[in-house]
Amino acid sequence: MMIDLNSDMGESYGAYTIGADDEVLRWVTSANVACGWHGGDPSVMRRTVERAKELEVRIGAHPSYPDLLGFGRRVMQITRQEARDYILYQIGALRAFAKALGVALQHVKPHGAIYNAAVKDRELSLGIAEGVADAGEDLILVGLPDSELVRAGREVGLRVAREAFGDRAYNEDGTLVSRKIAGSLLTDPDAVAERVLGFTRGAVKAITGKEIRIEADTICLHGDTPGAGAIARRVRERMEAVGIRPTAMGEFVR
Amino acid sequence: MMIDLNSDMGESYGAYTIGADDEVLRWVTSANVACGWHGGDPSVMRRTVERAKELEVRIGAHPSYPDLLGFGRRVMQITRQEARDYILYQIGALRAFAKALGVALQHVKPHGAIYNAAVKDRELSLGIAEGVADAGEDLILVGLPDSELVRAGREVGLRVAREAFGDRAYNEDGTLVSRKIAGSLLTDPDAVAERVLGFTRGAVKAITGKEIRIEADTICLHGDTPGAGAIARRVRERMEAVGIRPTAMGEFVR
Amino acid sequence: MMIDLNSDMGESYGAYTIGADDEVLRWVTSANVACGWHGGDPSVMRRTVERAKELEVRIGAHPSYPDLLGFGRRVMQITRQEARDYILYQIGALRAFAKALGVALQHVKPHGAIYNAAVKDRELSLGIAEGVADAGEDLILVGLPDSELVRAGREVGLRVAREAFGDRAYNEDGTLVSRKIAGSLLTDPDAVAERVLGFTRGAVKAITGKEIRIEADTICLHGDTPGAGAIARRVRERMEAVGIRPTAMGEFVR
Amino acid sequence: MMIDLNSDMGESYGAYTIGADDEVLRWVTSANVACGWHGGDPSVMRRTVERAKELEVRIGAHPSYPDLLGFGRRVMQITRQEARDYILYQIGALRAFAKALGVALQHVKPHGAIYNAAVKDRELSLGIAEGVADAGEDLILVGLPDSELVRAGREVGLRVAREAFGDRAYNEDGTLVSRKIAGSLLTDPDAVAERVLGFTRGAVKAITGKEIRIEADTICLHGDTPGAGAIARRVRERMEAVGIRPTAMGEFVR
Repeated sequence: MMIDLNSDMGESYGAYTIGADDEVLRWVTSANVACGWHGGDPSVMRRTVERAKELEVRIGAHPSYPDLLGFGRRVMQITRQEARDYILYQIGALRAFAKALGVALQHVKPHGAIYNAAVKDRELSLGIAEGVADAGEDLILVGLPDSELVRAGREVGLRVAREAFGDRAYNEDGTLVSRKIAGSLLTDPDAVAERVLGFTRGAVKAITGKEIRIEADTICLHGDTPGAGAIARRVRERMEAVGIRPTAMGEFVR
Repeated sequence: MMIDLNSDMGESYGAYTIGADDEVLRWVTSANVACGWHGGDPSVMRRTVERAKELEVRIGAHPSYPDLLGFGRRVMQITRQEARDYILYQIGALRAFAKALGVALQHVKPHGAIYNAAVKDRELSLGIAEGVADAGEDLILVGLPDSELVRAGREVGLRVAREAFGDRAYNEDGTLVSRKIAGSLLTDPDAVAERVLGFTRGAVKAITGKEIRIEADTICLHGDTPGAGAIARRVRERMEAVGIRPTAMGEFVR
Repeated sequence: MMIDLNSDMGESYGAYTIGADDEVLRWVTSANVACGWHGGDPSVMRRTVERAKELEVRIGAHPSYPDLLGFGRRVMQITRQEARDYILYQIGALRAFAKALGVALQHVKPHGAIYNAAVKDRELSLGIAEGVADAGEDLILVGLPDSELVRAGREVGLRVAREAFGDRAYNEDGTLVSRKIAGSLLTDPDAVAERVLGFTRGAVKAITGKEIRIEADTICLHGDTPGAGAIARRVRERMEAVGIRPTAMGEFVR
Repeated sequence: MMIDLNSDMGESYGAYTIGADDEVLRWVTSANVACGWHGGDPSVMRRTVERAKELEVRIGAHPSYPDLLGFGRRVMQITRQEARDYILYQIGALRAFAKALGVALQHVKPHGAIYNAAVKDRELSLGIAEGVADAGEDLILVGLPDSELVRAGREVGLRVAREAFGDRAYNEDGTLVSRKIAGSLLTDPDAVAERVLGFTRGAVKAITGKEIRIEADTICLHGDTPGAGAIARRVRERMEAVGIRPTAMGEFVR
């Protein structure tokens, strides 16, 4: 069983700092680096890639809708072609920093609202997948298992990584419990670690208590929740305690 | 005598159209493509690269200060590191479109105020040159002859192309006559063509009438002046009439 | 029968020019002035208000989603509170120019996608209406007849103006024919003028040929369609030929 | 002796939080509220005005260059007309929130680089002052004593408030010691309080130890320095301990 741990990184912007990048980066295997459209700026991008390189964490692009004011968390009705072009632009910008620092780009994980909208929107998903394929057929596209995004990625010939969330409760059908519902967010490090171990076995408990199957290649640990660093550490320690060493998705995703 | 003809392209943005790209592109050998910071957007970038490819015009990046409201024409006091990161970001974004469409990036020509500020600002010029070198040591940096920008480019190991302006009057010391002075801008196609022929011989008349030496590798034909298409055509025709075939700078700049 | 003619104005931005403001402004009675979020910038706003004042055209705010790249034409999922705050911000910015130039703000007409989304979205419409009411209870809110926007405006105590479109075909149920359908856009000045005269009688022909009733207080003449100036002029001339003098909505809307 | 205490407020943006607004706001008499161009957004503006109203702190606009990426801290070469229009736009936007919440706008304090550039730039200062006067001749313009900005304000007929800095060291000529020099920034609450008491007597010690005269109407307490809340509280307590009650500038500036 191979599994990757990913986290969103480099979402600070100009004078603004967000996230616990330094605390979380040392425990994950893949970093999703913001590209300036919902967060991140060129200087933050450089520093984030540098730091990931030092810690031997693989990097990917974390592109977004053009919505800095809304931090990329609001759906926008863009066309398939716009999605393709916006994604390609952002990947290209990040790849320049990766190339300058001598590291390869491993993956692309869309951010926030565009990630969520792509779950069920085939046209949007095709636009995203085409933008990723334009940037390079070696890139892995990260999406929710069974989503239109993952299907679109496979359709255009990309490798895909199915993502699970360590700190989110699941419904019985495998979808995420809405953030508006109490208990949807796990903040106890042990509870998150337990859930992550569940993902490595392909099975976790739904919010109802029923055991459900979730197949995941990579598990997201949020970097902007309180105690993010402590959670990430606990997850990593618990995994290693049971002999599971997280592995960057590029090593095993086909 | 080898000489390149360049023009700024792809500066339209969203619903806004600017420039006579289609008319000018067919007469030049190098296109400086805006990267979204003073003009241009991802969809415009794609279409511009596609069109340049069809017409076999070589492409370069045309990065700017982050100033869409001012169209990149206002000096901003940024640091050397910011310049480096901003330039790298923009080149990377454009290169992704070039790569997706199977064409190589040939050069980088800073846009507007950052180009002008770099003439005398060594720190800024070093930042720009470092950003270009980060993006790739094969890229040619375009700047004014004898400018700090050209010096910085050579210093970091880049090839540089010295640029002259077909539609601008020159002072005796080889600097451009300020746009505020009458006669600073040439709008007659024959006058521009005459001046361009002068550059190919290394000598043009200053505004005072005195002949001065200007060494140039590439001549800028503006795409946003009235009659830009007609001017570009006349220049090209007059050059070919005397047996000079413009050549993309990548073919001869060392 | 009192009727107003309105047109969107001041949507140019920085170096970019859009619309035929000068040609259209002389024929309308109300100008919807862009506020910088989808188009318009502070200097364009000043000039547009100045010109409207000279021509004795009443002015209103034309606020938008924060989407310059998409020219405000793409729906964004914003909250009611965000809508309220965004609308208030933009009205305030424009009102400062109006006040500086000694003219009063008459109305608010949301732009593009937020106008369209508000037709059926009650929460969004309430947010917009609350933002307008925050700015001043004397302001008139412009919306589609029978829309949630018009209802929300009345609900918060605003005067509302119901808008019809001179250059758009109508379905039998009074909705606009989609722009994707042939014949949806009228470009012949006489056809537009005929339609406008129909509105002044409260009845126009639907695209099917059937006569339908449309109650409108103000008729939109687009400023960015080809021949916009000629169309506006013909409309005005035909109206005056039959003795109807367009009147700014502020004079008669209750 | 009447003196005002001011602080910059409402510079958070979207998902990003900056400054210790809540801690500082209770100790000052005037709040400079960001207007969205270097920080602040419509929802932050509303909340900041609401909170200032609750605490009976007077509010003013804190307009900036259009540079969110640089937090308004980088000089941009804009024209006098642009300055006028940009300032007017931002004041208008903020005033709409003030009016909606039933509070009056008291003053305008330019932010960061435009404030500093205006010290010696007469054209820029005139543009700023004209923008403020456009917005309302009742507004107070805040600037450095003896600056071009203060002169321009008086010239256009505005009341002006001369500002001193509680946490900055001064040179013998009354200018601020550059932030690059050690000892330029005071972080000890008692040292800041001591300095503020000095301003109330019109005399403080320069960095050299020599006593210099500084005439100030308002003293800036920064909200984004470490311990900002504790410093503001100490200043206020020390002032009241010696019988000086800070008073909003609108009460006494002529």
